[in-house]
Amino acid sequence: MRGAVLAVGDELLLGDIVNTNAAWLGEQLAAVGVQVVHSAAVGDDVPRLVTALRRALEDADVVVLSGGLGPTVDDLTRDAVALVADAPLQRSAALEEHLRGLFAAYGLPMPEANLRQADVPRGARALDNPAGTAPGLRVEVGDQLVFALPGPPHELRAVAAPVLAELAELSGARLFTRTVHCGMTGESQVAELVEAAVSVPEGVALAYLAGGGVVRVRFTGEQDAVLRRLADAAAAALGDAVWGRDADTLAGVVHGLLGRAGATVAVAESLTGGLLGAALTELPGSSAGFRGGVVAYATELKESLAGVPATVLAEHGAVSPETAAALACGVRERLGATYGVALTGVAGPDEQEGRPVGTVHAAVAGPDGLLEVRSGRLPGDRERVRLLAVARGLDLLRRVLQAE
Amino acid sequence: MRGAVLAVGDELLLGDIVNTNAAWLGEQLAAVGVQVVHSAAVGDDVPRLVTALRRALEDADVVVLSGGLGPTVDDLTRDAVALVADAPLQRSAALEEHLRGLFAAYGLPMPEANLRQADVPRGARALDNPAGTAPGLRVEVGDQLVFALPGPPHELRAVAAPVLAELAELSGARLFTRTVHCGMTGESQVAELVEAAVSVPEGVALAYLAGGGVVRVRFTGEQDAVLRRLADAAAAALGDAVWGRDADTLAGVVHGLLGRAGATVAVAESLTGGLLGAALTELPGSSAGFRGGVVAYATELKESLAGVPATVLAEHGAVSPETAAALACGVRERLGATYGVALTGVAGPDEQEGRPVGTVHAAVAGPDGLLEVRSGRLPGDRERVRLLAVARGLDLLRRVLQAE
Repeated sequence: MRGAVLAVGDELLLGDIVNTNAAWLGEQLAAVGVQVVHSAAVGDDVPRLVTALRRALEDADVVVLSGGLGPTVDDLTRDAVALVADAPLQRSAALEEHLRGLFAAYGLPMPEANLRQADVPRGARALDNPAGTAPGLRVEVGDQLVFALPGPPHELRAVAAPVLAELAELSGARLFTRTVHCGMTGESQVAELVEAAVSVPEGVALAYLAGGGVVRVRFTGEQDAVLRRLADAAAAALGDAVWGRDADTLAGVVHGLLGRAGATVAVAESLTGGLLGAALTELPGSSAGFRGGVVAYATELKESLAGVPATVLAEHGAVSPETAAALACGVRERLGATYGVALTGVAGPDEQEGRPVGTVHAAVAGPDGLLEVRSGRLPGDRERVRLLAVARGLDLLRRVLQAE
Repeated sequence: MRGAVLAVGDELLLGDIVNTNAAWLGEQLAAVGVQVVHSAAVGDDVPRLVTALRRALEDADVVVLSGGLGPTVDDLTRDAVALVADAPLQRSAALEEHLRGLFAAYGLPMPEANLRQADVPRGARALDNPAGTAPGLRVEVGDQLVFALPGPPHELRAVAAPVLAELAELSGARLFTRTVHCGMTGESQVAELVEAAVSVPEGVALAYLAGGGVVRVRFTGEQDAVLRRLADAAAAALGDAVWGRDADTLAGVVHGLLGRAGATVAVAESLTGGLLGAALTELPGSSAGFRGGVVAYATELKESLAGVPATVLAEHGAVSPETAAALACGVRERLGATYGVALTGVAGPDEQEGRPVGTVHAAVAGPDGLLEVRSGRLPGDRERVRLLAVARGLDLLRRVLQAE
C-alpha cells in the first residue's frame, strides 16, 4: 500500500512552524505497512488544496491530511475534500449536538463558526477527537481512502489511532521495528561491526540513524522474531557501546540502573550550564535517583561549590581531567549522592585556557572515589558540543553502573 | 514571484528526520519576496523526483531543492534536474580539480564516487559550497529557475546565501519584517492591545506567533520605515510585557541588561533541573554575566546548597513563594552574584505536597534583598511546564533589571 501525507496551513509554507506532523505520520504509516511515497505541505486555499489532494491521489492508495479542520474561515480542508470526493458537505446533527455539549461542559457559549466542524462530506464518516473540538474525517474516493486529521500534534495523534489500526488491517503487512542504541561511537564503526556480525535476510531493512552522540541501528521487517534475533546479534557485536533498545532513552536507562542499585547521582557541570541535570530530570519520577547538581560556571565556584582544591585549578586549569575528577568527587560528597558525574570543557566559539573548542572531560565518582575519566574532543558548534557533552556524561555513568 | 520548495530524501518520508529545511527556506524565500505556494518532500528515486520537480514547475517561477547532492548512488537530484531541464550531465574539470583539492587538503584519498559531485547539467552553473563537498546547482528551465542545494542544514545555508540575494533582486519586492516579543501574556490579550493601538495599512501583514511562553507580534511588508512605526506603536501598547525586538532572544536581552549594569546572576532551580542555567549559557560570552547555579532537586539540598531555612521548608513546603524567595536570596549570596533567580514548582505528571501540576513560583533577589516573587499555574505537560517556567524566570529577571 502506498501512502501520501498532506499537511495543511500557510504557517508551514512560511516556515513559522516546522512540519513535525509529516515526520510522525511517515513513521506511523511505515509501521502499519503503508509506504509513504508522497509528502507535501499546502496553504489555506481551496484551489491549491484541491490540486494537492488530486496529485496525492495520483500517487497513493491512501491520503492522510493534517490541519485545516478548525472553526475559522481559513480552515478549508473539509471544503477541499468535499470537492475532490464530489460529496457536498452536510451538517451532522449528532456532531452538532456533540459540539454544543463540549462547550456546555466548559460553561462557554459556542461561537456559531464552530458549527462548521459539524459538516461532513456526504457518505463520509466523522472520526472521534478525544483531544479537541475538530472531528477527523474518513472519506472514500472511489477505491481510495482519504483521512483528514486535525493539525495540533496531540489531537492528530489521538484521532490517528483508529486510522492506523484500520490501515494495518488493510495493508495486511504490519511492519515491526527493532532498534539498538549505542553511545559515543562513529556511525561507520558501528556499521562495520554490525555487518560483520549479522547477515540481513530478504525483506528486512537495516538503517543507521546518527545524531546527538547516539547511533541507532534499526531493523525493519514483517517478522518480529527475526528482527529480535538480528537486534540481539547486533547488540552482541557492539558490546558495551550499547545502552538500550527500542523506546529506551539514555536518561531512562541510567535511572533504571540507579533504581536497581538503590543508588543516587549528583552532577557538577560547567560548559553544559545545567543541561546534564535537565536531562536527568526529563522523566517523571526522577527524584528517586537524582539528588541535584551544581553549575560551577565561574572558575572559583568549582572550589566553593564542589570543593575542587585550589591547587588543582591552579596547576591543571578549569578544563582538565584533574578538575573533572575533583568535581565528580566533590559534588558526590557535598550533595550526599552515591555517584557524582562531572563535565568540564570548552563549548566555544573561542578556545579557553589554550584548550580548543570541543575539548570535554567527563568524570564519574562513586563511594570508593574516582571511577572513570573520559577526555576527548567533540565536533560541532557551541550547541552541538554541549549536547554531545551531556550524552558523554550520561553514557559514562551508564557504563560505570552496568559494570558495577 | 511564486516559489516551490522540494526536499529530497527517503529519510524525510519515513519520518527519520524532520523537514527543518522546508521551514527555513520558506522563511528565507518570503523575506526576499518569493511567496512559497508549494512544498513537498520526495524520496530517492529518479522517476518520482522528476514528477515532483515537474509539478513544482507547474506551480512556481522558482524551485529550490534541498538534498540528494551527495556522492552515493542514492543521491539523485543531479540526474533528475538534468532530465527535467533536458540538459545532460557533463563533468566539470574545474569542479573535479576543486574536489581533489579538498580531499588532498585533509590528506585523504578521494573515493571515485565523489567525482559525481563534479557533474553539472549542460548550461547550468555550479554554486560554491564553502561548508562541504557538494556544490549546488543553478539551472534555467525555460524562463523558470531551479536551484539545487545540499541537504545538511549548515551546507544549505552556506550555499543559499547568493541564491537568496539573486532572488531578492529578481523579485524586486524585498519584504521586511519587524517583530515585537512579549513574555508571559496570552495571545488574545496581546492581539486586543495591539489592535486597539495600531491600524494596519494595506500591504502589511500582521501575525501573532505564540509558543514557549512568548508571543511574537510580526509585521511584514515592503516598507521598513512603516513597519518600524507599527512595531513601535505595538510595543508602546504592550508596555513592560515587551522584552525584545526582531532577532533578540530573552537570554540575550537579560545578558545585555546585566552587562550594562555591570552585574551578574546566579540561579537556584528545582523543577527545571538545570534548564534555567542552560538557557543563560546558551550564548557565547555568557560567563561575563552568569556565575553559576545550584539544582536543589532533593528538598534537603534547598537548605544545604542554597541556605533555605529549615523552618521555611517545614512551614511552607518546597513548592511555595517563601521557599522561592529564600532560594533566590541564598544562591545570590553563596555564589557571589549581584542577582539571584529561583524557580520551584511542580512539573508533573503528579501533584506534589498537594500542589497541582504547573504550580510555579519564581523569585528574584538583589543586593537589597528580595525584589520580586511571581506565582502562578502554567499549562501543559511536564516538558511544557519546565520550558514555560524557564521563560517565566528569565522574564522576571528582565523586568527587574529594566526597572532598576
